Amino acid sequence: MKPSIPKGTRDFSPEQVNKRNYIIDIIRKAFVKYGFQPIETPAMENLTTLTGKYGDEGDQLLFKILKNGDFTTDIKTPDNYKKLAFEISEKGLRYDLTVPFARYVVMHQNEISFPFRRYQIQPVWRGDRPQRGRYQEFWQCDADVVGSNSLLNEVELSLMIDEVFKALGFGITLKLNNRKILAAMAEVAGIADKMMSMTIAIDKLDKIGIDGVRREMSTHGIGEAAIAVVEKFLAIRELDELKPLFANSELGLKGIAEMETILDKLKVADFKNTIELDFTLARGLNYYTGTIFEVKANGVQMGSILGGGRYDDLTGLFGLKNLSGVGISFGLDRIYDVMNELDLFPKELGNTTKLLFVSFDQASFDYAFMQLLKVRAAGIACELYPEPAKIQKQMTYANNRQVPYVVLVGETECQTAELTVKNMAVGEQSKMTTEQLIDMLKS
Amino acid sequence: MKPSIPKGTRDFSPEQVNKRNYIIDIIRKAFVKYGFQPIETPAMENLTTLTGKYGDEGDQLLFKILKNGDFTTDIKTPDNYKKLAFEISEKGLRYDLTVPFARYVVMHQNEISFPFRRYQIQPVWRGDRPQRGRYQEFWQCDADVVGSNSLLNEVELSLMIDEVFKALGFGITLKLNNRKILAAMAEVAGIADKMMSMTIAIDKLDKIGIDGVRREMSTHGIGEAAIAVVEKFLAIRELDELKPLFANSELGLKGIAEMETILDKLKVADFKNTIELDFTLARGLNYYTGTIFEVKANGVQMGSILGGGRYDDLTGLFGLKNLSGVGISFGLDRIYDVMNELDLFPKELGNTTKLLFVSFDQASFDYAFMQLLKVRAAGIACELYPEPAKIQKQMTYANNRQVPYVVLVGETECQTAELTVKNMAVGEQSKMTTEQLIDMLKS
Repeated sequence: MKPSIPKGTRDFSPEQVNKRNYIIDIIRKAFVKYGFQPIETPAMENLTTLTGKYGDEGDQLLFKILKNGDFTTDIKTPDNYKKLAFEISEKGLRYDLTVPFARYVVMHQNEISFPFRRYQIQPVWRGDRPQRGRYQEFWQCDADVVGSNSLLNEVELSLMIDEVFKALGFGITLKLNNRKILAAMAEVAGIADKMMSMTIAIDKLDKIGIDGVRREMSTHGIGEAAIAVVEKFLAIRELDELKPLFANSELGLKGIAEMETILDKLKVADFKNTIELDFTLARGLNYYTGTIFEVKANGVQMGSILGGGRYDDLTGLFGLKNLSGVGISFGLDRIYDVMNELDLFPKELGNTTKLLFVSFDQASFDYAFMQLLKVRAAGIACELYPEPAKIQKQMTYANNRQVPYVVLVGETECQTAELTVKNMAVGEQSKMTTEQLIDMLKS
Repeated sequence: MKPSIPKGTRDFSPEQVNKRNYIIDIIRKAFVKYGFQPIETPAMENLTTLTGKYGDEGDQLLFKILKNGDFTTDIKTPDNYKKLAFEISEKGLRYDLTVPFARYVVMHQNEISFPFRRYQIQPVWRGDRPQRGRYQEFWQCDADVVGSNSLLNEVELSLMIDEVFKALGFGITLKLNNRKILAAMAEVAGIADKMMSMTIAIDKLDKIGIDGVRREMSTHGIGEAAIAVVEKFLAIRELDELKPLFANSELGLKGIAEMETILDKLKVADFKNTIELDFTLARGLNYYTGTIFEVKANGVQMGSILGGGRYDDLTGLFGLKNLSGVGISFGLDRIYDVMNELDLFPKELGNTTKLLFVSFDQASFDYAFMQLLKVRAAGIACELYPEPAKIQKQMTYANNRQVPYVVLVGETECQTAELTVKNMAVGEQSKMTTEQLIDMLKS
């Protein structure tokens, strides 16, 4: 049999793992610097925790785990596969990190000191149709503050975003919006009851264009006059232009005030990247109640690489009311793609082994082993080719592994206690004692 | 609804994640120092990859993932749940890291330079009945060398084990055996055809005692005379005592010679922990063909915390023959339990935030924000309590989070540009400028 892996999943080679860890380390360091603490939750959650949180489509995309043992005794509707799925499975793979986090907060509320700043870096699974850049297993790096209404949290998350992408080495545009502004738009257009339909339509502006948005709103019963008002809003890029239109909307003015507070603090803090106010930004998820975040990489064709926002009642789903939170989620896989495309990974990332010992025969192999122990005791990552194979074979291994130095150990080296050290980058060989070799590699 | 998580799974709090990462970092550093490279494989594997590799029981313990969409059209045997499970699911969660590794090596053989030293630190899932110390989701930290018959690999893995547990801070006993010795025992006892039954029985010596082992062998049709021979072997702890008994067994002498080579090199390398030869050690998995490893923590009641061995034909299962490998697997969860029991985790592990700014009103909050930015720009992890709440509330948060320093910012501090800094451990307060504060925290 020819082995394979499920569609939409990936193996990561050493090079890929090192590159991914490079990104994760930068994100994690920023999280810690801003006071966030790590949690981890199980890959499997009870389906009662997951279902109903991501819409009907989400429920279908959840990976459900078959009950162990005889699951057939629980079958009630053998002909309705959608219902049947929930009869023969009670666990599913987590679909995002936000819902498990809300569940965690409720279960551990008595151990937590609020405001709780948590980060979480784990894979999530979705049964989406795999396509370029979309996987069934992918990684999210989430930071959330829960238990505080303060807009300082939005500011801190934005600064953290700025810091992470500066460290990664590419420019981004941070798009901001506020759910209150979206709601006020609907209010002013006289379609407060159709706010969700309006939001879903204008969220697609990038993809379907203004005509598409018009058509979709019309389909959902939004009249010509309302559409015209919404269209007028969509052309606006400045809070000052928005203000007169919201003169009679308390909600709208509140949304504007929130954005102004955040922007003021970001100015004071010398936010470096581009900020763009985008009053069409909704990011599908309907649990956002305030600020909405999105990040795009500058100069690269790629969907959003970060999303987030404020949600006033996420834990309410699990019975803990009145706990406001705000969070962001870095998309590791897309950030990886951007870094690769822009060639931003340090070149020596994978060269963890600094030295390979190569031996000619059993005696020099045994001698090389003794030198290996000394070099390793000095904390230097090194290897001995595990047998005195043909030199050609050992050197090919050194080349493939991109080991910077090779030590050739033969009869002479054993007798003189001087090693022949080859610098693989320049091809030069020199003689030195093991102690000199250690000094060279440590410096 | 009151939320819960599936039995046998766990949430990890910040303290637990930090402790777990402390262990993982030590293991990973050793892996890298010994030349191992990281790979990662998907949580979900095709069931064709997983089934038949862990025995019939293992097949039942695999978590199977329901097909997305209408899976009922594939049902052929609605009344046989064991068969049905494989009709309505085609993917499963990985059960260990060894089989996915073998699958990886076969699929990526053309990119790999052999001998391939890989490490892999990921969770695995098994539908075992949960009990103390046994979970349905747990972590393995595996290192394997594939594509080399050299016993140097066994030596290096042993040295790495020694180094990891020295760094973790507790003594261990490394138990060694060799499958060839087990096979030769069966050969000498005249029960070569019942070698597996013998092995499974003597592997349980710890749990069921010598009488139990006798009974189990007898049940499997092993005669009195053979049982007496096996029993004689089981009392032996030294290779020298074993040699005369294997005088006519080429296999047995080969097994002894292999162990001697390994032990000689470990002596030369100054292996520090205890080594125990245990000729009953089999570690169930029947793909081992040479050396067998097991580690137990000294002075703690706990099952094995590491297992491993040599397998001559693991990738053969996937069509790539004649590739010998040897590997070990650290059990993160049990090592964690040992470290906790022996109180070996550094105390300050979770205190990542060095400083909390506390403010009295909006003006001092804004001033504190400016100072926060300066301290953070110096690379120091710090937080500002996100609003000028009651001081009591802010100080309680500081205490719960075990923040070492609190900066109190009030009207005076804003005017004099001198901060009041409280050392939370000793309770003392002192005045200093922000620059002095940074110097103190960086030193």
